[in-house]
Amino acid sequence: MGRFDLPVVDFWYEFASTYSYVAAMRIDALAERHLVNVRWRPFLLGPIFSAQGWTTSPFNLYPAKGRYMWRDVERLCGEFGLPFHRPREFPQNSLLAARLALLGATDGWGEAFAKAVFVAEFGEGREIGRPEALAPILTKLGLDAGALLARARTDEAVKSRLKAATEEAQSLGIFGAPNFVTEDGELFWGNDRMDEAFDWAAGQGRHPARRPG
Amino acid sequence: MGRFDLPVVDFWYEFASTYSYVAAMRIDALAERHLVNVRWRPFLLGPIFSAQGWTTSPFNLYPAKGRYMWRDVERLCGEFGLPFHRPREFPQNSLLAARLALLGATDGWGEAFAKAVFVAEFGEGREIGRPEALAPILTKLGLDAGALLARARTDEAVKSRLKAATEEAQSLGIFGAPNFVTEDGELFWGNDRMDEAFDWAAGQGRHPARRPG
Repeated sequence: MGRFDLPVVDFWYEFASTYSYVAAMRIDALAERHLVNVRWRPFLLGPIFSAQGWTTSPFNLYPAKGRYMWRDVERLCGEFGLPFHRPREFPQNSLLAARLALLGATDGWGEAFAKAVFVAEFGEGREIGRPEALAPILTKLGLDAGALLARARTDEAVKSRLKAATEEAQSLGIFGAPNFVTEDGELFWGNDRMDEAFDWAAGQGRHPARRPG
Repeated sequence: MGRFDLPVVDFWYEFASTYSYVAAMRIDALAERHLVNVRWRPFLLGPIFSAQGWTTSPFNLYPAKGRYMWRDVERLCGEFGLPFHRPREFPQNSLLAARLALLGATDGWGEAFAKAVFVAEFGEGREIGRPEALAPILTKLGLDAGALLARARTDEAVKSRLKAATEEAQSLGIFGAPNFVTEDGELFWGNDRMDEAFDWAAGQGRHPARRPG
């Protein structure tokens, strides 16, 4: 929740994204150190990738980039002491998890759910596109898994909210994940830019004027 | 030059690359702090991009990525106190500058030349593909600009060396710029990963075992 008087940074994450996993596991400690509040914003990269003509992740489209990413994520998990288990399928279908995270955002369990999904996916190699993988996570949080999964599949309001979030992400200039967006609209892309985003939000960065266009 | 007993990190840079500019301007101070020696390795991204079907920079192919990059580089230059002037043409033809940098590497002026080219290009917005932009840089370094430019255009040995360097970069798994490669073959891509690469080289990183394949 955090203090009401601190700057807010939106953390735009995608459940299918490896670097979103690393960022999600580091963000609390770093936000506390930088004195910023973080708002967790799930969205879908699929429609954004489609719009630029990609049918899958660039890590699959460009093998050298993909090989690098897997080694790099393994290294980062080593560095930050995070479990790492490369899932067989990549990217996974993140639709159901993202809708659940939006339901959880309203009810106060969104962040805990998101972290548990990321650990299941990239720490344990589970298939988080399947309801069978998400149900135990919800149950462990003391929630009614059956009811929530049904809602995530049928509730038109939550479908619309996820669609709107994805459109908002696109309108902010987002083209990958994770991202950090400050209250003055600055976009920082990538797990490795979290520090700079929080510095910016806390007013410690030097702020070159934004150019028109 | 550095001390002979320190770990060596190869700095693979491309003169057309904005993030290579930022990295080139920061690398000396950071290498000194981390106690590593840096070997400057110019190469060309063009052939590597071509091999994956790109005819220009991904920053031109994907407008959202491009808009982000220009704003981000402007911010980074602000943060590090570097001059920034967006050149009219991007990416620029870096062939001649890269060949000169290779000549300079043998003769001890490669790094100073590389930094001056980067400042001319992204600090002053000059067209570094043109010999007219490179000649004053060579002259300022006390060199015979005319003779060196002639050699860069005709010397078959330097052409072959640049071709071999680019092939070596590709064989190392390089797909962008800048990169940092440690003696044990670890690749770190991006200006924002310089710290981690130097930590790794200095043996301070935790080293998860490399997986086969």
